[in-house]
Amino acid sequence: MDQSPSITETPHQSVTFAAGLRLDCGRTLASVTMAYRSYGTLNAAGSNAILICHALTGDQYVAEPNPETGKPGWWEIMVGPGKPVDTDLYFVICANVLGGCMGSTGPRSPHEDNPDQPWGTDFPQVTIQDMVRAQKLLVDHFGIAKLFAVIGGSMGGMQVLAWAALYPEMVFAAVPVATASYHSAQNIAFHEIGRQAIAADPYFYAGHYWREGMRPERGLAVARMTAHITYVSEEALTRKFGRKLQNAEGLSALGDQFAVESYLQYQGSSFVQRFDANAYLTITRAMDLFDLAADHGGVLSRAFKGTRTRFLLVSFSSDWLFPTAQSRAIARALNHVAANVSFVEVQSDKGHDAFLLDEPDFHQTLRGFLAGCAEHAGLA
Amino acid sequence: MDQSPSITETPHQSVTFAAGLRLDCGRTLASVTMAYRSYGTLNAAGSNAILICHALTGDQYVAEPNPETGKPGWWEIMVGPGKPVDTDLYFVICANVLGGCMGSTGPRSPHEDNPDQPWGTDFPQVTIQDMVRAQKLLVDHFGIAKLFAVIGGSMGGMQVLAWAALYPEMVFAAVPVATASYHSAQNIAFHEIGRQAIAADPYFYAGHYWREGMRPERGLAVARMTAHITYVSEEALTRKFGRKLQNAEGLSALGDQFAVESYLQYQGSSFVQRFDANAYLTITRAMDLFDLAADHGGVLSRAFKGTRTRFLLVSFSSDWLFPTAQSRAIARALNHVAANVSFVEVQSDKGHDAFLLDEPDFHQTLRGFLAGCAEHAGLA
Repeated sequence: MDQSPSITETPHQSVTFAAGLRLDCGRTLASVTMAYRSYGTLNAAGSNAILICHALTGDQYVAEPNPETGKPGWWEIMVGPGKPVDTDLYFVICANVLGGCMGSTGPRSPHEDNPDQPWGTDFPQVTIQDMVRAQKLLVDHFGIAKLFAVIGGSMGGMQVLAWAALYPEMVFAAVPVATASYHSAQNIAFHEIGRQAIAADPYFYAGHYWREGMRPERGLAVARMTAHITYVSEEALTRKFGRKLQNAEGLSALGDQFAVESYLQYQGSSFVQRFDANAYLTITRAMDLFDLAADHGGVLSRAFKGTRTRFLLVSFSSDWLFPTAQSRAIARALNHVAANVSFVEVQSDKGHDAFLLDEPDFHQTLRGFLAGCAEHAGLA
Repeated sequence: MDQSPSITETPHQSVTFAAGLRLDCGRTLASVTMAYRSYGTLNAAGSNAILICHALTGDQYVAEPNPETGKPGWWEIMVGPGKPVDTDLYFVICANVLGGCMGSTGPRSPHEDNPDQPWGTDFPQVTIQDMVRAQKLLVDHFGIAKLFAVIGGSMGGMQVLAWAALYPEMVFAAVPVATASYHSAQNIAFHEIGRQAIAADPYFYAGHYWREGMRPERGLAVARMTAHITYVSEEALTRKFGRKLQNAEGLSALGDQFAVESYLQYQGSSFVQRFDANAYLTITRAMDLFDLAADHGGVLSRAFKGTRTRFLLVSFSSDWLFPTAQSRAIARALNHVAANVSFVEVQSDKGHDAFLLDEPDFHQTLRGFLAGCAEHAGLA
């Protein structure tokens, strides 16, 4: 397995598929590298594998410190020995998405026709389904014929839905969390703000900033700040900051006068150290393009016709980015085809971010669902 | 009366107060110009005057075409002969706010110490209360001892509340619409995105863009786009655009693929033609600083102690920027001091912008309220 570099040139564990991948847009990537991490042990039958799908700004370091930031894995609270996704029982895989910037093929990877330069904005626009097809190459590579479960939140949840729709026979259980079967006009609008802010940065150079040795950090920071507001609830923001003034003496229009402002600025500036702007453009656009019903004549239930996958849908009451109604619509579509589906709205005031945080009801629910599925799958 | 220039040098009707104005920040403006428009006729008793307070990006052209854009006045649906605010009955005044860019003193005005240059970011940070004090100079100038009504939505509603708190004897009736007694952490956060986008624009030049003959148009456009999303409801965005693709052929990360994107881009680009970035910074910050309870020991009702003003509070059910709960909190505070208060939540799916749009229930309510007040004031 090769070691593919990320934007900071940190080597990541990866595997390259030389047969390439045909994309939804009609173009073909001549070769695809998937950077991934795995935890636990695959059993002899290959029947205990769980694929975790990460969200927009996530990565493969789900249950161990991220080598670039030194911070804990993004879902250590959920994945590990004895955790709800128990690595003593399951073989857990998490891959950086196609189009990402943590070692998988994406805008930061060498251009096919000119390997001295990164793809930049010439990278083909990928879809959520393309991300899933690339993950399938990796799952096949491990010799896994059927995943015990596919689990993910937000954009990760979109991938879970796409897995269940594209490869129903390969998914025993599916857990789409805090997600939707399409990106709403409001969500597209918030993404567009971020893309405009990046494109407006003088160091963007129409996407060829690497050539200039620069990065559109301020634009990317504004994009991240905007997204961050949508990830938290009004209640959470108020509890954390209220109207606390940072600089009580003197009034001015610029500068971080309110605590919430310096927090947002921190969120923005720490993000640009680890994320590639072109990858942000590509991945947000992939989310915007996601519309599972549209791919099935406008009828969502057709995406799951005849499915034998067991579904657990989870939403959070204060999530206004992917509100409960969107999960309920998926549940209805699944019920329409008589699928095996559980649907839980977790009461939380933490907003969309709740899926990443300490929400005992959610963790308990997932633990119980997996235990039940393990029994049915003959794993327990 | 002098003719003060705006950012596009259009002359506006205005009056200059050479005695100046002491501001909340402790600084004093040596002179204050207020640009305004008036409609209808002041009666002999001076008792039929209505002051309209505009919102963040509004101006004094409430009931006639804006001379800079050629578009209809921003509240022609509400103000005019036979309209709910009937200029056949009332003398209606609307002034550009202090800190604005349509002829009133603001960051675009000549610097006191260096009149060849505009103030730019050196303009003192004003508050909502400062805006109201400047409006009072104008009301005094007209010889009006008591306004029949003060009416405004959003930031205009904040001014209405400040009028009722600062000059209770001068306000017979007050109509704060789609507003709050403080700016929430979430609202501050959205404003901060806009300010960061402006500051990140290479043509901002730390606020001295006029010197360079440039304007931070892209940053200001991103700010406007962000704000615009908060003005509309998810329902309204979906109804208007849904997920309509603009460019069906070919996928790419940048470019306006969804109809909602080109709409936002239009909103952003048309706005920068008429608005000054420094004014945007100053006015958004004034809104963020507004906290009427904090000015009264944390107890909102104290702001209205002993008031004899008649209040009509209006909120809109789908307004998530200034949700109904914030109007209800004002109603409670007014009830606490036994004020005369009506409170109506108008059912609407148009979001915060509803106050500017064709909402018959709202218009009917305001018409009825004003008629009742006119009777009590001996006007009818």
